[in-house]
Amino acid sequence: MAELDELAHRLRRFAEVREWERFHTPKNLAMALAGEVGELLAELQWLTPEEASGVMEDPDSAARLRSEMADVMIYLARLADVLEIDLLEAVHAKLDENDKRYSATEYRGSARKAPPPA
Amino acid sequence: MAELDELAHRLRRFAEVREWERFHTPKNLAMALAGEVGELLAELQWLTPEEASGVMEDPDSAARLRSEMADVMIYLARLADVLEIDLLEAVHAKLDENDKRYSATEYRGSARKAPPPA
Amino acid sequence: MAELDELAHRLRRFAEVREWERFHTPKNLAMALAGEVGELLAELQWLTPEEASGVMEDPDSAARLRSEMADVMIYLARLADVLEIDLLEAVHAKLDENDKRYSATEYRGSARKAPPPA
Amino acid sequence: MAELDELAHRLRRFAEVREWERFHTPKNLAMALAGEVGELLAELQWLTPEEASGVMEDPDSAARLRSEMADVMIYLARLADVLEIDLLEAVHAKLDENDKRYSATEYRGSARKAPPPA
Repeated sequence: MAELDELAHRLRRFAEVREWERFHTPKNLAMALAGEVGELLAELQWLTPEEASGVMEDPDSAARLRSEMADVMIYLARLADVLEIDLLEAVHAKLDENDKRYSATEYRGSARKAPPPA
Repeated sequence: MAELDELAHRLRRFAEVREWERFHTPKNLAMALAGEVGELLAELQWLTPEEASGVMEDPDSAARLRSEMADVMIYLARLADVLEIDLLEAVHAKLDENDKRYSATEYRGSARKAPPPA
Repeated sequence: MAELDELAHRLRRFAEVREWERFHTPKNLAMALAGEVGELLAELQWLTPEEASGVMEDPDSAARLRSEMADVMIYLARLADVLEIDLLEAVHAKLDENDKRYSATEYRGSARKAPPPA
Repeated sequence: MAELDELAHRLRRFAEVREWERFHTPKNLAMALAGEVGELLAELQWLTPEEASGVMEDPDSAARLRSEMADVMIYLARLADVLEIDLLEAVHAKLDENDKRYSATEYRGSARKAPPPA
């Protein structure tokens, strides 16, 4: 079974056996996702860019970052499942769009925003 | 190739050909991730729980949600790659931990937080 | 002295005596602000709308919400000071704009977004 | 009338005349607050620390930052009003606590987190 389908399945089962489905509404899961992203930001917020680039060299920081990234992925995958969104398909559709929108020659070395698609 | 490895590879290549690697620092990517989660929240914020549960039935809302979820996944996968975190491994390690921490009998139907691991 | 000026002054002094100014860059403060908003969301995420409406009746929840709201205000005021933005002036300018953009008759009872200003 | 009370009053009146009170639940306002913080992050995310420090020198960036900061303050003040939290009192209570928790001699020049209050 594909990785993300398997993950969605594991999360669905985790919620079912605890009777947590009623908490897992789209709004609640989106809030939980944002809360976890907040915890991820907190790990990086006071570091200089140089310190942040080397953050995985410290075992304690690395463990915390792995844990926070996991929490973000968990709520994202759970929200996608509840909304019946195929996350992988959505991602590749968006990247196909970005490939056209941000032409490599035009946007080389520049972080300016592309105009919205017509 | 596994789904998430393939995604990380596509994102790395996308950044390389545009010479965007220098923008893709851990702090910048974490900020971009939070910004995209903010756009996702904006899609759901004024809906009642009932409206939010049916949000995918409206084709325009469904397309916007797919697009915002994709953006969140894109920055999460890109940040994991830059930090050299194996996202899938981190997720399953966290779920193994949660399986023990939130026993199905003790937490059935309850959303209270588990005490932090000893 | 006006309330928000006094707050900005107290926060500036707090950072100065701890030599924390070098941590208080615009990006770092914006990340800290988002992190605190994440903690605020976490207080509300699993509640039903009804439970959330009565959340201040529980003294423990009320204390946590007061504390999280304070943290959000603290980083917002500190960021405004570092960017030399007059927060109160910015707010009233925005509300003057919103008064025109969202006419009371046209938007009564509707949460749809106004078109972007021309 | 004090600044923040006056702001809360103006926001309450704005919602009333548009019959928007039913949208302004604690959860919805917290989501809107997080969404606006996301827009603020988006203004700063790709800048170097040096560029971010000078961001107010560009009139367009300055106008956008003022506008995003205003939106954050608006939803924060509105949420405080709905929850009947005195934001200014909460902030100064928190700062009194921080004055004790982060002693100036012990935390000088260090961004490490204080242990949670006993």
